[in-house]
Amino acid sequence: MTTSPSRRAAAKSLALAAAGVAVSKSSAAGTPVNPSTNAKYKAVFAVSDADPARWNMVLGNIRNAQADLGADNVLIELVAYAGGIGMLKLDAETAQRVSEAARAGVLVSACENSMRGHNLTRAQLNPQTGTVPSGVGHLIRRQNEGYAYIRS
Amino acid sequence: MTTSPSRRAAAKSLALAAAGVAVSKSSAAGTPVNPSTNAKYKAVFAVSDADPARWNMVLGNIRNAQADLGADNVLIELVAYAGGIGMLKLDAETAQRVSEAARAGVLVSACENSMRGHNLTRAQLNPQTGTVPSGVGHLIRRQNEGYAYIRS
Amino acid sequence: MTTSPSRRAAAKSLALAAAGVAVSKSSAAGTPVNPSTNAKYKAVFAVSDADPARWNMVLGNIRNAQADLGADNVLIELVAYAGGIGMLKLDAETAQRVSEAARAGVLVSACENSMRGHNLTRAQLNPQTGTVPSGVGHLIRRQNEGYAYIRS
Repeated sequence: MTTSPSRRAAAKSLALAAAGVAVSKSSAAGTPVNPSTNAKYKAVFAVSDADPARWNMVLGNIRNAQADLGADNVLIELVAYAGGIGMLKLDAETAQRVSEAARAGVLVSACENSMRGHNLTRAQLNPQTGTVPSGVGHLIRRQNEGYAYIRS
Repeated sequence: MTTSPSRRAAAKSLALAAAGVAVSKSSAAGTPVNPSTNAKYKAVFAVSDADPARWNMVLGNIRNAQADLGADNVLIELVAYAGGIGMLKLDAETAQRVSEAARAGVLVSACENSMRGHNLTRAQLNPQTGTVPSGVGHLIRRQNEGYAYIRS
Repeated sequence: MTTSPSRRAAAKSLALAAAGVAVSKSSAAGTPVNPSTNAKYKAVFAVSDADPARWNMVLGNIRNAQADLGADNVLIELVAYAGGIGMLKLDAETAQRVSEAARAGVLVSACENSMRGHNLTRAQLNPQTGTVPSGVGHLIRRQNEGYAYIRS
């Protein structure tokens, strides 16, 4: 994971603040927060299709899962790879919804192999996006860590 | 889960009776049976596509998994959401096979978010179908409970 | 699993030899090797679509996962069923890449139900392929054994 912990902590703080949740001084100050600390559930959502309808479906699914389980009870990560990498582009039709998901505490991770395969640089992706060396390798790690897996 | 336990127990009893399995008096009398009690394996099958060919594939897969693992050794739940919700409609071309699966002990669950999104009422769904608030939230819960996940 | 352990051990030995890894005398002599012994990660990749583009994607994903996690740290099995069974045919356009995956230590398993459904005999499949009675039943078993599940 090359994602900056402080960037994620800031996103989490914003999300909690927006949700009216008390944010501790340490996280408000940017101190890294491990978002999994208090989460009963962990889930990784995988997207590999170059299909905006599916991108919108998964973003709706994530929102519904947060509402169902309680946003504070579930740590959600979205991993985009293969054709799904397009979902994270700055000019994707889902760009605003991806930013909203990140602000609501969702970790967003792009596969570096897929970025190379699609000639995408970091600067072309949503600034809220982190990267992982291999999307599928990361999905295996996350399941090994006890994450549920939701394939879109 | 809003599914009535007694309805599920009745379906299970019918399934066991049809399979020539001795049914205990308590379950025959409608006393709720926890179908997971003796199951070594648990699996949740997810369907989200509005594609009858895929619906038939998953129903065949479920039957094959029961035959392979032993119907008494595996607790299977089918969760339909997004476009997959159409699979559970009373007038779906898969209606009879869904009823057969329920009679063979498969729990069938419809996503309430998807029902609203498709303007479907409970009365328009197969009477053997239960509902869950969020299909994807439910899939996360089930995996957290140790269910295998099969994405169709 | 009807796969011959010695065939798999031989494939593993070849793979290790090709990778410049020292192969113990016992495995070189064909003594069954349990490839999971030292693997921290285990993953089963499922393919059910009759879509060569997807077959190539999963083969690339497997290679990337091995590179990311370390080929010796991850035990990978590829399970083909339904329309995905075509991926394992001797004359599939992916035939050479499937053989390469097997030589790189990937277990390759064909669903016997799907073979019957597609009128395929063992002789028509890649010789590196093993078979399992039910692809989906096998995926449930593997997840129960702690394998991560990657749906293509």
